[in-house]
Amino acid sequence: MRPVPFQRVALRNPFWETRQQTNRQITLPHLFNELERAGNIPNLRLAAEGKREGYQGPVYMDSDLYKAMEAAAYVLAQNPDTPIRQKLDEVIAILERAQTPEGYLNSYFQVVAPEKRWTNLRDWHELYCAGHLFEAAVAHYEATGSDRLLKIATRYADYIDSVFGDAPNKRLGYCGHPEIELALIRLAHATGEKRYLELARFFLLHRGRKLFAQEHGIDPDQYDGTIWQDNLPLTEHQEIVGHAVRAAYLFAGATDLVMEGDPQAEAILAMLLRVWHNTVNRRTYITGGIGNEARHEGFTTDYALPNRTAYQETCASIALIFWAHRMGLLLGEAHYFDVLERALYNGALAGISLSGNRFFYVNPLESEGTHHRQSWYACACCPPNIARLIASLGGYFYGYSDDAIWVNLYAESTAQVPLQGGEVPIEVRTNYPWDGTVEVRLPQGTPQEITLYLRLPNWCQTPSLQLNGQPLPLQHEKGYAVVRHRWTPEDRLTLHLPMAPTLMEAHPLVEADRWQVAIQHGPIVYCLEECDQPVPLERLAVRLDGVLRATYDSGFLGGVVLIEGEGEALDAPEAWGETLYRPLRARQQVRFRAIPYYAWDNRTACPMRVWVPGV
Amino acid sequence: MRPVPFQRVALRNPFWETRQQTNRQITLPHLFNELERAGNIPNLRLAAEGKREGYQGPVYMDSDLYKAMEAAAYVLAQNPDTPIRQKLDEVIAILERAQTPEGYLNSYFQVVAPEKRWTNLRDWHELYCAGHLFEAAVAHYEATGSDRLLKIATRYADYIDSVFGDAPNKRLGYCGHPEIELALIRLAHATGEKRYLELARFFLLHRGRKLFAQEHGIDPDQYDGTIWQDNLPLTEHQEIVGHAVRAAYLFAGATDLVMEGDPQAEAILAMLLRVWHNTVNRRTYITGGIGNEARHEGFTTDYALPNRTAYQETCASIALIFWAHRMGLLLGEAHYFDVLERALYNGALAGISLSGNRFFYVNPLESEGTHHRQSWYACACCPPNIARLIASLGGYFYGYSDDAIWVNLYAESTAQVPLQGGEVPIEVRTNYPWDGTVEVRLPQGTPQEITLYLRLPNWCQTPSLQLNGQPLPLQHEKGYAVVRHRWTPEDRLTLHLPMAPTLMEAHPLVEADRWQVAIQHGPIVYCLEECDQPVPLERLAVRLDGVLRATYDSGFLGGVVLIEGEGEALDAPEAWGETLYRPLRARQQVRFRAIPYYAWDNRTACPMRVWVPGV
Repeated sequence: MRPVPFQRVALRNPFWETRQQTNRQITLPHLFNELERAGNIPNLRLAAEGKREGYQGPVYMDSDLYKAMEAAAYVLAQNPDTPIRQKLDEVIAILERAQTPEGYLNSYFQVVAPEKRWTNLRDWHELYCAGHLFEAAVAHYEATGSDRLLKIATRYADYIDSVFGDAPNKRLGYCGHPEIELALIRLAHATGEKRYLELARFFLLHRGRKLFAQEHGIDPDQYDGTIWQDNLPLTEHQEIVGHAVRAAYLFAGATDLVMEGDPQAEAILAMLLRVWHNTVNRRTYITGGIGNEARHEGFTTDYALPNRTAYQETCASIALIFWAHRMGLLLGEAHYFDVLERALYNGALAGISLSGNRFFYVNPLESEGTHHRQSWYACACCPPNIARLIASLGGYFYGYSDDAIWVNLYAESTAQVPLQGGEVPIEVRTNYPWDGTVEVRLPQGTPQEITLYLRLPNWCQTPSLQLNGQPLPLQHEKGYAVVRHRWTPEDRLTLHLPMAPTLMEAHPLVEADRWQVAIQHGPIVYCLEECDQPVPLERLAVRLDGVLRATYDSGFLGGVVLIEGEGEALDAPEAWGETLYRPLRARQQVRFRAIPYYAWDNRTACPMRVWVPGV
Repeated sequence: MRPVPFQRVALRNPFWETRQQTNRQITLPHLFNELERAGNIPNLRLAAEGKREGYQGPVYMDSDLYKAMEAAAYVLAQNPDTPIRQKLDEVIAILERAQTPEGYLNSYFQVVAPEKRWTNLRDWHELYCAGHLFEAAVAHYEATGSDRLLKIATRYADYIDSVFGDAPNKRLGYCGHPEIELALIRLAHATGEKRYLELARFFLLHRGRKLFAQEHGIDPDQYDGTIWQDNLPLTEHQEIVGHAVRAAYLFAGATDLVMEGDPQAEAILAMLLRVWHNTVNRRTYITGGIGNEARHEGFTTDYALPNRTAYQETCASIALIFWAHRMGLLLGEAHYFDVLERALYNGALAGISLSGNRFFYVNPLESEGTHHRQSWYACACCPPNIARLIASLGGYFYGYSDDAIWVNLYAESTAQVPLQGGEVPIEVRTNYPWDGTVEVRLPQGTPQEITLYLRLPNWCQTPSLQLNGQPLPLQHEKGYAVVRHRWTPEDRLTLHLPMAPTLMEAHPLVEADRWQVAIQHGPIVYCLEECDQPVPLERLAVRLDGVLRATYDSGFLGGVVLIEGEGEALDAPEAWGETLYRPLRARQQVRFRAIPYYAWDNRTACPMRVWVPGV
């Protein structure tokens, strides 16, 4: 399965269309304002002017700019008149001037510490920054047809290729923060240059040789490279470890390598299947996010999924989406898109405010009311990351192969699918994610039989199909409903995915969630914010036998399905007076209201919980 | 109300009689063996021989010996033929030889660091050790009539009195670990020497002047004396703070001072009432223990009562008993004995194994199965403390005033009550704590009317009285049933305290206990040990609407009422397979079994919980 590129997909439903509009009109200008204010762009101006002082921010400032440029390029691809074009050209001009004659480009190491270039691959993000430049360049080239940024990228890539490799005159090494691997493969595709693929392969397959121990003068026997996934050679990983974003970017790159038909593809894929399994079945929040603790921004042990201290970095949810998408395309199995969908609608989407200009870096599943989105961060990786995801989101919805179209995610949308026999338009009508009825049409029909694969989401137990109002027996394949047909413009294929608010429970080894329930409605995970409840959240439980009612409210939180349900409340402290323990009394019966997790912290600051005691 | 001394009370029920027998036959010999082995007695031999090396253990080793001697004296008082008498005489002879001509006696400062005498009152426990010597001496004197140990004590007290005080030639100071205050008052009573009372008063009322800041060269404005209750003058405390044992010993001594009719009695009592209220209504476990965290072995904030990390030192439960007893005697209010009873049957009693030779120092309310009693501790304060409590326990049951007898605790027992008009024997027949029927007789009758005060325990909502089988209207006074009567030998007064297993809940601000329940039956708090359950404890919840059944089993854990009830179990991990989240399923219905908290960790090592999720 290959993806139908986002340029060929138009998301039309209010849910995503509104978000893409906000992304274009609010988020992008906000990003570039902040990138000027915080120093990311000024740093590169300093480099362009050959200055040696005035640098602001941490060592990886360039990368945040590149991600914002990538987002801007995606926006331009579908909205060529967006004013961001001018800003982008201005920045590209700075980059052209800043790049050294040999091709090197990194504002920190040009302005602050030229003598330290390539001296600390583990911590200083040089290759990581380069990777984000490559991604931005490919996006810009594909969006605009201009190769100005792509030229900068290939010059830099060529230079890196001249420095790193396993030839005798080259340096063994890889970046502490994976990213360049998937970026080089993308660059190889855009340019047809196989050397970039080889370089990505080198970085991927040398990782785990504990070169960071050598770099830092640590006894390899005493060295634990886990945080950088440098603990084991790539094919030997058994579980997902270390920094969550690094891990998912690394495995996304490794999946790309398998797709390229690498000689080691079999061993890499076996590793990916093991680690994927460990990730999604042991180490992922119900909101689809990963990385359970702040220390190392990463993983600890199986089933350790605390809620109040959940880290679940926005970038990690996005990185999991990248990896899941590649796995789904490679293997054509629907469950990868189940994971992608969960991460998208919950863990990732929570990362940005409804207003589009405030961001979560850390996404706890429980808050005492003091955790809020910020307009920017000293480490501002998340804001431009969510922007590039939203701008290119259409690219995750459809896939195709010779004579088949895959619908992997559902939204009111149209797509132009480049099948072997010619371009086939497809049209999906649905109120997904709020309603599970999905109507599919191929408005121009097809001259011969083609197959539609419609993903059967794992949140739905009772899917059914109709063709032109008549029931169609459900043929399954790898989690997809399969319908082979010669389509006429009048054919309407309807997938019914009955959607009802559902209490969810977690595996009993997840200590933090024991005796608690979460609420899910279709792909959306809910939370309770205290401002919606009749009693403080800490005194509220959900009744396991209570009725849950879902109502769409178009005027609330940008339009959401609200869930109302029955709960029990502990007596207020005032009712207890000065008693500390007493025989159990009957509890007050109350009604509670749940909102989508992604929409929390968009109103009054107040406590929030995803998992709530169930009684 | 004055207490009927333990020598005049015979506890006859299997519950306490067995424990006193074990205390005499197992615990006492065990203590003295360990005190020889660990160095407590050898240290004093070194001092007696003028040696300067070979000292073992921490600075407060003497105190553990003195507490064991106090326990031994109590045992001798009621069992003069106990072989411990000889050991006691041997140790007293060592002490006689070790005491310096001026009266000083402390093995650490005689063997290890004579030059450091009185140089670090805050940390080095010198006055604390002296206090325990005084208590042991009074007990020994009252038990045996011999004044050998008492003479050592008074010589030491006289010497301390010559050093400390607010006269110009004396030193301002007090001990970092309160204890000497209550001990001096006891010594004053035994000897009639008012100077000891004055010295106790001096130590109590000078505390909080931050002298430790001075002693340690700390800027008083930067000094936080909380851990030693040195943060405020005695009468200004608002809440219980710092090290739990120190706090409760301090307030027990302060209560003694009020009983003495001190000029500042009113202000001290006002403080005691405030701090008592804070202690029992905000900072006490359901098991009656205090001190919620290991750091400083003490208190943090109101309602902070974690279970797995509960500290609840055995000595702190005992110290609370000492304080509660004094408050009850002073004020004649039953609720103080409710607290005493809760601490006695639960927090304190858990401190010793059924076998009598293993001890808890820390008493968590939840264990993963790795917390066990030990035969001794490097800091061995708890083992002799529980021994002296059990040996003198009869002294907590009865009180008297001119023509009234108070029954404060219930057990099958007899007592000789020294009323104004002569000694009145009283006889109580009951299976308390397993059954709430209490029959009281005065087997010799009374020539005139006397009043019986029978405590109405706060665990019982529906007490009732019968005299000779006929209902008697219940007259209350300060939590006691009051019956004034001229008693004939045939009169049988029966107090009915209906006892049923009860689910308890905690104040909603106790975060650790929210949505959980504990089980109580009469004064006994229960726990669940995993070895009694059909599923691992972490997957078991108690049904709030389930039936609880209480059954006495004389052959189990020394004879206990077991509670059986209905619960729900989460599916086993095996049943979940590799699913991490799923729609909530109906849970398995199971039966659970609860045992008294005090009896936990007497069988297979396994997880334990007092508070269990309620569903």
